[in-house]
Amino acid sequence: MGSENDYQMNVVKGEFGYVLEDVPHFADYIPDLPTYPNPLRSNPAYSVVKQYFVDMDDTVPQKIVVHKDTPRGVHFRRAGPRQKVYFASDEVQACIVTCGGLCPGLNTVIREIVHSLDCMYGVNKVLGIDGGYRGFYSKNTITLTPKSVNDIHKRGGTILGTSRGGHDTMKIVDSIQDRGINQVYIIGGDGTQKGAAVIYEEIRKRGLKVVVAGIPKTIDNDIPVIDKSFGFDTAVEEAQRAINAAHVEAESADNGIGVVKLMGRYSGFIAMYATLASRDVDCCLIPESPFYLEGEGGLFEYIERCLKENGHMVIVIAEGAGQELLAAKNEEDASGNRLLQDVGLWISQKIKDHFANELKMLLTLKYIDPTYMIRAIPSNASDNVYCTLLAQSAVHGAMAGYTGFTTGLVNGRHTFIPFNRITERQNEVVTTDRMWARLLSSTNQPSFIGPKEASEIRKQKTPATQLLDDGEDCTD
Amino acid sequence: MGSENDYQMNVVKGEFGYVLEDVPHFADYIPDLPTYPNPLRSNPAYSVVKQYFVDMDDTVPQKIVVHKDTPRGVHFRRAGPRQKVYFASDEVQACIVTCGGLCPGLNTVIREIVHSLDCMYGVNKVLGIDGGYRGFYSKNTITLTPKSVNDIHKRGGTILGTSRGGHDTMKIVDSIQDRGINQVYIIGGDGTQKGAAVIYEEIRKRGLKVVVAGIPKTIDNDIPVIDKSFGFDTAVEEAQRAINAAHVEAESADNGIGVVKLMGRYSGFIAMYATLASRDVDCCLIPESPFYLEGEGGLFEYIERCLKENGHMVIVIAEGAGQELLAAKNEEDASGNRLLQDVGLWISQKIKDHFANELKMLLTLKYIDPTYMIRAIPSNASDNVYCTLLAQSAVHGAMAGYTGFTTGLVNGRHTFIPFNRITERQNEVVTTDRMWARLLSSTNQPSFIGPKEASEIRKQKTPATQLLDDGEDCTD
Amino acid sequence: MGSENDYQMNVVKGEFGYVLEDVPHFADYIPDLPTYPNPLRSNPAYSVVKQYFVDMDDTVPQKIVVHKDTPRGVHFRRAGPRQKVYFASDEVQACIVTCGGLCPGLNTVIREIVHSLDCMYGVNKVLGIDGGYRGFYSKNTITLTPKSVNDIHKRGGTILGTSRGGHDTMKIVDSIQDRGINQVYIIGGDGTQKGAAVIYEEIRKRGLKVVVAGIPKTIDNDIPVIDKSFGFDTAVEEAQRAINAAHVEAESADNGIGVVKLMGRYSGFIAMYATLASRDVDCCLIPESPFYLEGEGGLFEYIERCLKENGHMVIVIAEGAGQELLAAKNEEDASGNRLLQDVGLWISQKIKDHFANELKMLLTLKYIDPTYMIRAIPSNASDNVYCTLLAQSAVHGAMAGYTGFTTGLVNGRHTFIPFNRITERQNEVVTTDRMWARLLSSTNQPSFIGPKEASEIRKQKTPATQLLDDGEDCTD
Amino acid sequence: MGSENDYQMNVVKGEFGYVLEDVPHFADYIPDLPTYPNPLRSNPAYSVVKQYFVDMDDTVPQKIVVHKDTPRGVHFRRAGPRQKVYFASDEVQACIVTCGGLCPGLNTVIREIVHSLDCMYGVNKVLGIDGGYRGFYSKNTITLTPKSVNDIHKRGGTILGTSRGGHDTMKIVDSIQDRGINQVYIIGGDGTQKGAAVIYEEIRKRGLKVVVAGIPKTIDNDIPVIDKSFGFDTAVEEAQRAINAAHVEAESADNGIGVVKLMGRYSGFIAMYATLASRDVDCCLIPESPFYLEGEGGLFEYIERCLKENGHMVIVIAEGAGQELLAAKNEEDASGNRLLQDVGLWISQKIKDHFANELKMLLTLKYIDPTYMIRAIPSNASDNVYCTLLAQSAVHGAMAGYTGFTTGLVNGRHTFIPFNRITERQNEVVTTDRMWARLLSSTNQPSFIGPKEASEIRKQKTPATQLLDDGEDCTD
Repeated sequence: MGSENDYQMNVVKGEFGYVLEDVPHFADYIPDLPTYPNPLRSNPAYSVVKQYFVDMDDTVPQKIVVHKDTPRGVHFRRAGPRQKVYFASDEVQACIVTCGGLCPGLNTVIREIVHSLDCMYGVNKVLGIDGGYRGFYSKNTITLTPKSVNDIHKRGGTILGTSRGGHDTMKIVDSIQDRGINQVYIIGGDGTQKGAAVIYEEIRKRGLKVVVAGIPKTIDNDIPVIDKSFGFDTAVEEAQRAINAAHVEAESADNGIGVVKLMGRYSGFIAMYATLASRDVDCCLIPESPFYLEGEGGLFEYIERCLKENGHMVIVIAEGAGQELLAAKNEEDASGNRLLQDVGLWISQKIKDHFANELKMLLTLKYIDPTYMIRAIPSNASDNVYCTLLAQSAVHGAMAGYTGFTTGLVNGRHTFIPFNRITERQNEVVTTDRMWARLLSSTNQPSFIGPKEASEIRKQKTPATQLLDDGEDCTD
Repeated sequence: MGSENDYQMNVVKGEFGYVLEDVPHFADYIPDLPTYPNPLRSNPAYSVVKQYFVDMDDTVPQKIVVHKDTPRGVHFRRAGPRQKVYFASDEVQACIVTCGGLCPGLNTVIREIVHSLDCMYGVNKVLGIDGGYRGFYSKNTITLTPKSVNDIHKRGGTILGTSRGGHDTMKIVDSIQDRGINQVYIIGGDGTQKGAAVIYEEIRKRGLKVVVAGIPKTIDNDIPVIDKSFGFDTAVEEAQRAINAAHVEAESADNGIGVVKLMGRYSGFIAMYATLASRDVDCCLIPESPFYLEGEGGLFEYIERCLKENGHMVIVIAEGAGQELLAAKNEEDASGNRLLQDVGLWISQKIKDHFANELKMLLTLKYIDPTYMIRAIPSNASDNVYCTLLAQSAVHGAMAGYTGFTTGLVNGRHTFIPFNRITERQNEVVTTDRMWARLLSSTNQPSFIGPKEASEIRKQKTPATQLLDDGEDCTD
Repeated sequence: MGSENDYQMNVVKGEFGYVLEDVPHFADYIPDLPTYPNPLRSNPAYSVVKQYFVDMDDTVPQKIVVHKDTPRGVHFRRAGPRQKVYFASDEVQACIVTCGGLCPGLNTVIREIVHSLDCMYGVNKVLGIDGGYRGFYSKNTITLTPKSVNDIHKRGGTILGTSRGGHDTMKIVDSIQDRGINQVYIIGGDGTQKGAAVIYEEIRKRGLKVVVAGIPKTIDNDIPVIDKSFGFDTAVEEAQRAINAAHVEAESADNGIGVVKLMGRYSGFIAMYATLASRDVDCCLIPESPFYLEGEGGLFEYIERCLKENGHMVIVIAEGAGQELLAAKNEEDASGNRLLQDVGLWISQKIKDHFANELKMLLTLKYIDPTYMIRAIPSNASDNVYCTLLAQSAVHGAMAGYTGFTTGLVNGRHTFIPFNRITERQNEVVTTDRMWARLLSSTNQPSFIGPKEASEIRKQKTPATQLLDDGEDCTD
Repeated sequence: MGSENDYQMNVVKGEFGYVLEDVPHFADYIPDLPTYPNPLRSNPAYSVVKQYFVDMDDTVPQKIVVHKDTPRGVHFRRAGPRQKVYFASDEVQACIVTCGGLCPGLNTVIREIVHSLDCMYGVNKVLGIDGGYRGFYSKNTITLTPKSVNDIHKRGGTILGTSRGGHDTMKIVDSIQDRGINQVYIIGGDGTQKGAAVIYEEIRKRGLKVVVAGIPKTIDNDIPVIDKSFGFDTAVEEAQRAINAAHVEAESADNGIGVVKLMGRYSGFIAMYATLASRDVDCCLIPESPFYLEGEGGLFEYIERCLKENGHMVIVIAEGAGQELLAAKNEEDASGNRLLQDVGLWISQKIKDHFANELKMLLTLKYIDPTYMIRAIPSNASDNVYCTLLAQSAVHGAMAGYTGFTTGLVNGRHTFIPFNRITERQNEVVTTDRMWARLLSSTNQPSFIGPKEASEIRKQKTPATQLLDDGEDCTD
């Protein structure tokens, strides 16, 4: 087992192919730490629950579409409160930082970390770091109390402020030490979690009793392993408004086209789910499924057909779709790059030009970019509950001495996941999987893949006995 | 295996404790039926998907919180399209019926059954049964086409109409035979699914090649095995409005109390999740957790304390909560039963009387019953996607010759479940489980259980090595 | 002119039948008060406006449907800033009180009084009276600053709290004197404004330099003279949700009836406008139009007809409708009075009983009472602007030394109105006027008036040359 | 009076300066037309209304802020049903056309014209012209029945389709004659109404008994005389979403700026009212108030100040604002014109460049363009009622033989207005009027006018006794 265990992950194996990819713990690098009975024991809320503490052996499988003879595969440690904690309540000095773009639910996560520390563990020293990672270098911090955060879940954005980048591991760890912080809660996306992993490694190298706990945040749902990211549901819901508007505009005009750009730099989940939920979309373009404009089976041909048949159409495009086409264009024409970086404006112009110049056909094209109107709303009820449980899991894990972990929902169960598992790749729409087939079937759009290419795909990728690897789809 | 296999379920066993509780199939009672290649083979949408047909061996475990040495337990058959189908497209005559109370998403399910049959399987004979089970006796049916159902998912209610009861198995099966129907899609709750099970048995007895496929509908989320029922998310979201209003009314008055009654005749899921999502609720009363009004640890005492501390409070009560108290009251005072059947009106009056008479304290109590405003809204984006996949699963199962099954999400995967598994008991909030503990912790309300009783509970129900049976919680 | 001028109103007459019903002013009872130039002179916002001060002679007519030879009739003083003010900025000690039931926009009015005093007049001493009139007797007051009220317009309810009654003129005026308050802003309905009128009279008797300014609040729109009351628009909008839900419930059931109770104790404006806006309502019952249940031309007959023709129907009933029927019922059966006080529950039961007992007809009746969900929401954009201007008008009037007045929109112009004009009667839907005819025409409901009676009405009330007195309708 | 009366308007004068600007009528150019009693006489809805027909002498004044000695001024004819009509019910062949951009309420107006003609006047021949004016040349028309339009008010857009331009008077009038149409309802903006005026003149020249009735449509509220245009309220309400999002984005970033572009090519009403309703906007830029970027008192200086004081800001800009700056820029750099035509993108870039290059200051600027999401929503309750009354007024006027008129709300009363009155100029925000002063005061933004210029403005434009000409403001 040796080489498999490193700073990032402890691997445990069991019968019938069982593998546990466990998260690090203080006990891995600090010997003989004192422990305390979990204060929840005396919490009346927990006094009636038959097993209020998670069994130390509880784990959750990553793959659950199985055959009767399938080996059991990778598991993660179940999240939840433990019998013993590694901090006395008055010893804890926690801090929270939010990084990257806005996402519905950020304030709920902040609120619930503060409330969980206070109500469940009696911890009342919680600092907010102001404006992302770079806030660690600043003198200003924000004191967070249950009262000061009481209503923030009803507001969009993050009361802590946020920013991109600004990550200097040494300075951050110095700042953590200087301020006497021993629990660091880091809410952010892929890059942020990579940063958290490095901070955790540096803390471990220094031998500090400081928890680094991540809460993965990505409105795009592009983090692997977990069922879905918080705010995603809210975003898909809110995207319906823009799609409805595009549909109305398109229907009211002769040869009307509504184009909606949605979030999704590398992953088209929001575009795909918003399309599936709406039923008013005729074409959904995502980064994972390359497309082309001209010729047989191309986008222009499909648009022409839609307009002839229905007189109008709606196109949803993820912000990262078709970047290879944009890039090519940029090489030809360096001066136009500012305009071209927005794929929605670019494709709108391309369509207008094509139909005006090639087909002498009058279009009415309306382009809608609801990105910031989606990002900035408060989380809906479903995301509110989800954010609450993510925050509680993070706090339970931290108090129990786990570190170098993120919390995440795996097959409907809250788990602790090693950082490297969620940062080693991005979650993407698997275009050879059934959810994408459902979308194609629902829109009737072309696959943008020639028949020869398609047969190649099937030949290469379909070993007869392999299970579908669809562990990432939240509703497959 | 003998006695375990009956009309309702085929049981298959495998290694390491693996059990498959399989659904019935035509092949169980009709020999030598012809099969056809699945028409999806030629659907361009599926041509790029590497494994567009579900492997015959794919199954999904019911319990997924496991230890490294846990036996594998019960599994269900994974839903999805099969290589072979048991109907030629033009042979199919399908019908859809909706029964019981309204629930967000009914129209989406109807729409998607019609669209799936048409777009994926080339089936265009679909009838709507008018007004629930009793519509089978009526001459009127509603012809359903992809065009006629195209926009119905944007409306609440059910375009087919609905009713309660009206179930006469023989007459229904006669009607099915008379009309030449060979696929029956039944959307309804517990009672409706029990009816569907009996219809299936009668059809099987008669040896008919008629599929009976259920789609479980319950806004209360009180159907077991499945992660959650469609419409539940939408209901919890919409309930926030009522809770917000109650909170505003309570805050604006001196000793203000807002009481919100939510759905939940036997199960308090909507009340529990709406409370967890809102954070403005001080007390949540559900059928599963008995409470009492007077004396130490009772509701009145808690209300008094809340008003003293905050000056106002919000109470959420599920419609089925406290029925044992209401029943007792009814025995005393037979004349008042009409009023008393509404637990919200009843508890509001009880509180007002107590504070006026016992404590001479002036309250301002506002009672809100948003039930029909919640039931009647269209489904949100998340439920729209869910309803779509439920409908597709039912159609895939029916075309593949499965019968006597319902479709349902189990641990995030769509499965076929035998009728008896979802009708043998009701899904309830497990008040000795962690989700309820989270709620208690979030509201700080009393457990309404004396300390002695609590210790009894723990003693009896906590064998040391048993796993938490929390399979029903959708977001544990 | 003598006897027409009293404490409540100064009457001025002009040419061609012009009458100005002017509001009181300090100068009426305190001689030789110093005045100051309006601080707005130096406000950059006003420096570019050609006439930033209202001309002292500006007035607004009450009746504006005129003939070429009609006398000019009653006018009110136009609201707005004056050249001279009667308070130095640092001399002002203002207070705000909110009374009666909740209404969307209360917080916006509070916010804008505070902001207007601060930004426009440099006044920064503003107190909130806690919990309605009776808050004047309490020690507690709430300090209001532009910062503390900055976001309150996004919340429903009133941050000051509210209550009914509690009016003891002497104690209130004593409290005003004791606290050195010299501007009293009173937000409330009919009864509250009557109270304000008495407070003003007592203050005048005592010869105090204290402004009493009313801002009329009534979600029912039952205050006369003014075009409409703030919050009314928001209430009509929000009522659509309940009507939609009733419509969906009714449509989905066989013989489905949806009953929605809306606010309107004495005036059916919300019910009437909500009906006109929705187009889904088949019958609208309001206090001003008596109806009867049984016999020819009665409600039961109409319901029977609707169900036969359409299979379902929606009834909207204002809370004050049919009280004469309820009262009669109460005399017969004294024990049932609790249930019967809610006209919505009463009529629902009556309908169910009639169809079950008389017609042996199965109904599905769903009753929705959205009252508190409507009252408690924040004001919409239109009401937000309206509340802002009402608050500004009140502040301009107070600074200019007017007192004993309310602010109100008259024919689209902001005016100062004497208290007695708005308290002497209630605004009611004129059922012999065209707006009600439009409603009848839109629903096709019976007039509940026999033909003989109708001819009486027309004979009595239609002198040939009289103009329609429809001054109260905001959109006639 | 001679020369004042022309095809467009009949002028009648009365005592005390009374002037009636009356609309044309069949009787002006077709002698001896037969008349019929109004069918509403037998409508039960109207049987209880004491004066269900508008008195022939009823008129409504344009200016209603008056002094006791002010002359009475211009009046318009009051809309409503007349005792006599000029069409037999079965003689009417009506058509409806919608032109120009989308606006909330179009479908409600269409629905209510159809319903009013049918329910009130027994007219059942109504055609929809497909796709704006150019639809007159096409063979296709859409048959409109009360049933086919029954639910369309719940959808955005226009079911008739719309387009810009396409106006050939002769061909349109030929088409009207060919189809036997005798009532033409034209829903559209400024240009459309000008077209309607010309169509009316041609019809009059040909001596045809064909009504041309306009219903003014402009989401921008840029039509003069009328209080406000339908859809405006809905647009201001919906704009709040975008402003809220901009506010959240700005607050969550360091030096965050949210820029929202709103509709308003020539008139800034939506921007102004959305700003006044929101209270989250720091700067509102409209076409009527020129601004400059650099130097003292310029926009950049103000932004810098806002960021220093608050760390973030929100800018609302009407699409037509600052066009003079854009034009200048275009001359310099001809190649970039595509990008520059969108003032929101342009100003966002300008701000980013200035702060990056001049001040070396890091901004986070988020730009939101909600235009199509606002235009495409269904009308709110308030606009629904307004659209209903507009449609009814148009139908009453047409049946009564009036032609060459538009319907419009003047000081809260529905009137008939001559075409030339609403097309001779555009309604604009009067930046020297109090509503704009209120906005400046609410945002604290600079006036962008130097002190010397300001004094010029006041000197020139403020004759001492002139009344404020603010007749167009709906809530002055």
